Amino acid sequence: MKVQVVENVLRANDELAAINRGDFERAGVFVVDLIGAPGSGKTALIEATLKAMPDVRFGVIAGDLATQRDADRMAKFTNHVVQINTGKTCHLEASHVRQAMAGLSLDAIDLLFIENVGNLICPVGFDLGQHCKVGVFNVCGGDDKAAKHPYIVRESSAIVLTQVDLMPHVNFRQQVFLDDVKTLNPSAPVFALSPITGTGLESWLKWLETARAGVRRGEGRKL
Amino acid sequence: MKVQVVENVLRANDELAAINRGDFERAGVFVVDLIGAPGSGKTALIEATLKAMPDVRFGVIAGDLATQRDADRMAKFTNHVVQINTGKTCHLEASHVRQAMAGLSLDAIDLLFIENVGNLICPVGFDLGQHCKVGVFNVCGGDDKAAKHPYIVRESSAIVLTQVDLMPHVNFRQQVFLDDVKTLNPSAPVFALSPITGTGLESWLKWLETARAGVRRGEGRKL
Repeated sequence: MKVQVVENVLRANDELAAINRGDFERAGVFVVDLIGAPGSGKTALIEATLKAMPDVRFGVIAGDLATQRDADRMAKFTNHVVQINTGKTCHLEASHVRQAMAGLSLDAIDLLFIENVGNLICPVGFDLGQHCKVGVFNVCGGDDKAAKHPYIVRESSAIVLTQVDLMPHVNFRQQVFLDDVKTLNPSAPVFALSPITGTGLESWLKWLETARAGVRRGEGRKL
Repeated sequence: MKVQVVENVLRANDELAAINRGDFERAGVFVVDLIGAPGSGKTALIEATLKAMPDVRFGVIAGDLATQRDADRMAKFTNHVVQINTGKTCHLEASHVRQAMAGLSLDAIDLLFIENVGNLICPVGFDLGQHCKVGVFNVCGGDDKAAKHPYIVRESSAIVLTQVDLMPHVNFRQQVFLDDVKTLNPSAPVFALSPITGTGLESWLKWLETARAGVRRGEGRKL
C-alpha cells in the first residue's frame, strides 16, 4: 500500500514537471536545479554567477524550510526571485516550482536557478521541470561526500566543488573526491571554485553558457 | 489515504523505538542521536569524544546511504561499531537501530552514539530509542543554518557548533547563530568547539557525562 501511494505521488509530480518544462521551453528559459547540503555554498554560487554574467537575465527560486534569507540575498542581483518555504518538507516538488512560476515573468528570464532545499538526498528523486541538476559539494564538508552520496552524483550533469579558498585550512584530498565522482559519473565535469575569491569560476560560467545555448538550439533538451 | 499510511509507519516506528529504549535502559546504555548536515563534522566529533574519554565504553551506530568509511574511522577507537547503509533512505528509523543492536553487546557499552544519515531535516521526526538528540552545525555552513532548520534546533537537548578553528577564514557571525538558537530553543546549551584543535571540547564532554549520569540515576529518562 505504501509503495502504491508513493508511486502515485511520483507520477503526479513527473506529469506536473513535464508541464513546467514545456512552459520553460516555450519561454526560452534554461533551468538549473542546484542540489547540495545545507551550507555547501549554493546561495554564494548563485550570487557569484549572477554578478559575473550581467548580460544574462536571471531568475531564482529559492527553497528552504523556513526564512527568506536566501531570497533577500539574491534580490540584490535580480528582481526575479521567489522564496518557497516548505515547512517540514525536505525537498522541492514540481508543485512548489509551479506555484513559484506564478510569481515570475518567464519572458523576462533567460536562466532560472532553482536552489533546492539544503539536502543531498531527498531532492534527487524529484523532477521539477529543470534541464539539468547540478550537485554542489564543499571542501569543508570533507572529501568522502561524493562516495557517500552516489545518487546525486549520478543524476548530476555537472558537479561544483565550492570553498577551494579554504583548501589550505582543512584536510581535503581533492584527488579522492575527483576519483569518486569519476567512478560514479564519468561524463560529469567537476568545477572546483570559490565564489568568494572567484578562483575557478570562469569554467563554470562557460559550461553554463554552453549548456544554455545547447538547450536554446534544441540540443539535449534534458542534459 | 497518504496521511493514514504515514501515520501507521510513524506509529510502528515509535513502538519499536520504545522497545529499543527499554533494552538500552536495562543494559545501562546512554544513547545520543547525532543529527547534522553532511560534512558538519559528526564523525570528527565522535572521534574526538571517544579519544578524550578513555574510561567510557563507547558504541557507535553509523548511518550512511553508502560506504563504511565512518565505521572504519571509528573502529580505531572502539570495537563496538556497526555501520548501517540505508540505500536511498534519508534518515535512520527505529528498525535500523534494532538491526544494528543485534550486532552490539549492550552490556559492554556505557554510551552509544547513533550517527544519523547526513541530513538536517528528515531524521528529526524519527524516534530511534535515544535519550537525546544533539544537532550538529558547522561554522563553514554559515551562520543562518539554525534559523533555516528550526525543527532540529527545537528537538535538540544540546547544539554543537563545530569547526570553530576555521572561524578566522570565513564570515560567520557567531552571535547571529546563538541568537537564532536561543529564540528557537532557549534551554539548549550550545557547545562551540573544534574536534581538530580540541578548543571548547571540555564543556561538551562535561555535559555528556552529566547527562549520562542523570539517565543512570533515572532522572530525565528522555532528556
